[in-house]
Amino acid sequence: MKVVVVGSVALDSVKTPFGKAENVLEGSATDAAYCSSFFAKTGIVGVAGQDFPKRHIELLKKKGIDIEGLSVVDGKTFYWEGFYEFDLNQAHTIKTELNVFQNFEPVLPENYRAADFLFLGNISPKLQLNVLSQMKKRPKLVVSDTMNYYIEREKENVLKVVKEVDIALMNDSEARELFKTPNLVQAARKILALNSDYAIIKKGENGSIMFTKNSHFAAPGYPLENVVDPTGCGDCFAGALIGYLAKKGKVSEKEIRRSMVYASAMASINAEGFSLNALKNASMKTINARAKEFKGFLKF
Amino acid sequence: MKVVVVGSVALDSVKTPFGKAENVLEGSATDAAYCSSFFAKTGIVGVAGQDFPKRHIELLKKKGIDIEGLSVVDGKTFYWEGFYEFDLNQAHTIKTELNVFQNFEPVLPENYRAADFLFLGNISPKLQLNVLSQMKKRPKLVVSDTMNYYIEREKENVLKVVKEVDIALMNDSEARELFKTPNLVQAARKILALNSDYAIIKKGENGSIMFTKNSHFAAPGYPLENVVDPTGCGDCFAGALIGYLAKKGKVSEKEIRRSMVYASAMASINAEGFSLNALKNASMKTINARAKEFKGFLKF
Repeated sequence: MKVVVVGSVALDSVKTPFGKAENVLEGSATDAAYCSSFFAKTGIVGVAGQDFPKRHIELLKKKGIDIEGLSVVDGKTFYWEGFYEFDLNQAHTIKTELNVFQNFEPVLPENYRAADFLFLGNISPKLQLNVLSQMKKRPKLVVSDTMNYYIEREKENVLKVVKEVDIALMNDSEARELFKTPNLVQAARKILALNSDYAIIKKGENGSIMFTKNSHFAAPGYPLENVVDPTGCGDCFAGALIGYLAKKGKVSEKEIRRSMVYASAMASINAEGFSLNALKNASMKTINARAKEFKGFLKF
Repeated sequence: MKVVVVGSVALDSVKTPFGKAENVLEGSATDAAYCSSFFAKTGIVGVAGQDFPKRHIELLKKKGIDIEGLSVVDGKTFYWEGFYEFDLNQAHTIKTELNVFQNFEPVLPENYRAADFLFLGNISPKLQLNVLSQMKKRPKLVVSDTMNYYIEREKENVLKVVKEVDIALMNDSEARELFKTPNLVQAARKILALNSDYAIIKKGENGSIMFTKNSHFAAPGYPLENVVDPTGCGDCFAGALIGYLAKKGKVSEKEIRRSMVYASAMASINAEGFSLNALKNASMKTINARAKEFKGFLKF
């Protein structure tokens, strides 16, 4: 097992100006593990309910994802219902039912505990720290994600996670909220000050930016003419990023820059369909070709 | 005269979380001409009132800007008063007094009319077309800018300008409004369809994007840790862009990409002070060094 991904497993109902999808597969662990698995052997840790369709589990297995860490327990799967209007950058929530996710206590299967790459997806920061403590040794790279919900309720713990991990991914609004500054460079400096070598801030369609103490990289978003559903793009970004680095086996600034380009490319493919539909049809050749296009986007 | 810049000449009172400035020099023509003049001989066309301090005119002259096209007439100079809060991307207007700008009818001095580079800054689209018609021959490059005010009131004329010019600059919200789409790639395609070889959309701190029919360039914003006042950055962007191209003397995709990097660099310097204060202290060496940094921002 190269990569372990922990997070939510969800069924979503989403409406966008381009259509709707009901009870489809989403969730931070699902999306991130799916994207990571394009690059490296990945194990998923999450919880689903009795209503979770077997075909979703089959889909993960078909991608070679280890599902030993995916528990199916009594109750219903985490459910989110929402919509996007004209502005696809803004999700509007209609309903959130935590269901079995409410009592999620991730337990890593024995053969996950020596993985070199760990992604702590969107779950409570306490659980993220708990998962990290279950590892037999400190992984080579620990990447985390968070969301406004936890920043508002458990800020101190979110900061603890930022301090513990190597790359604390967050998006621009989360970074601004966590560090109480509208300036993303200042927010990035604060991430770096919390014991990180790399600060990466996701900016949706505007791409992502990376800072080290002495350098900066700006990965643009892929110029998508038709966005169908942006749900899960942030998780796809994270999954592709860690999967790419796991495949390379090393974490250098050079490889991190490249991983961000792959992450941007895969997030853009995800936005071209509901659920994992567009990714299901994507081959490694498609992904490589899209990542290669970024060379032209950045040439001057 | 290589570059002619037409637009507003203003006195602004601005408050930001970092201080305030009262009755200071701003305006689309002023900012754009000032930035253009770093690269090429520039003439300004605009109107000011009797209250316009002589030291501002001296400042423009000192930069080598030809001021024959700058009329000083009876009445007061265009005045804008506004503030920025925590989010420096959002200007809040307190007061706009058009004053002498209301009856502005730009007349190009004879020796401006053969210029090869023309920037039609933020004035009514009818006046922009009128200025273009005053040129003795079609300039090599005509760049325009616009704003929501004109898109809402004179949409058809704004579209006429887009059709007439070579590069119709606008920012993301303007492009979305003009072409009724949240998707910037679609908006850019519509600009290209209106007889343009290049579509450039400004995105504030997120940089700018350029599209041709077959290619794409993403120039990031300069990662500024301390933004003092973003007023005029869009005009500085435009001025540096056209000035850079005028200096090079040719308009190719390669030079346009480079001009966007210089434009981003100069806009970021402008944001480091009120009015033109930061630019006043900037040497060509500083600007070149900042533009060069973008190589590192885009390397992967």
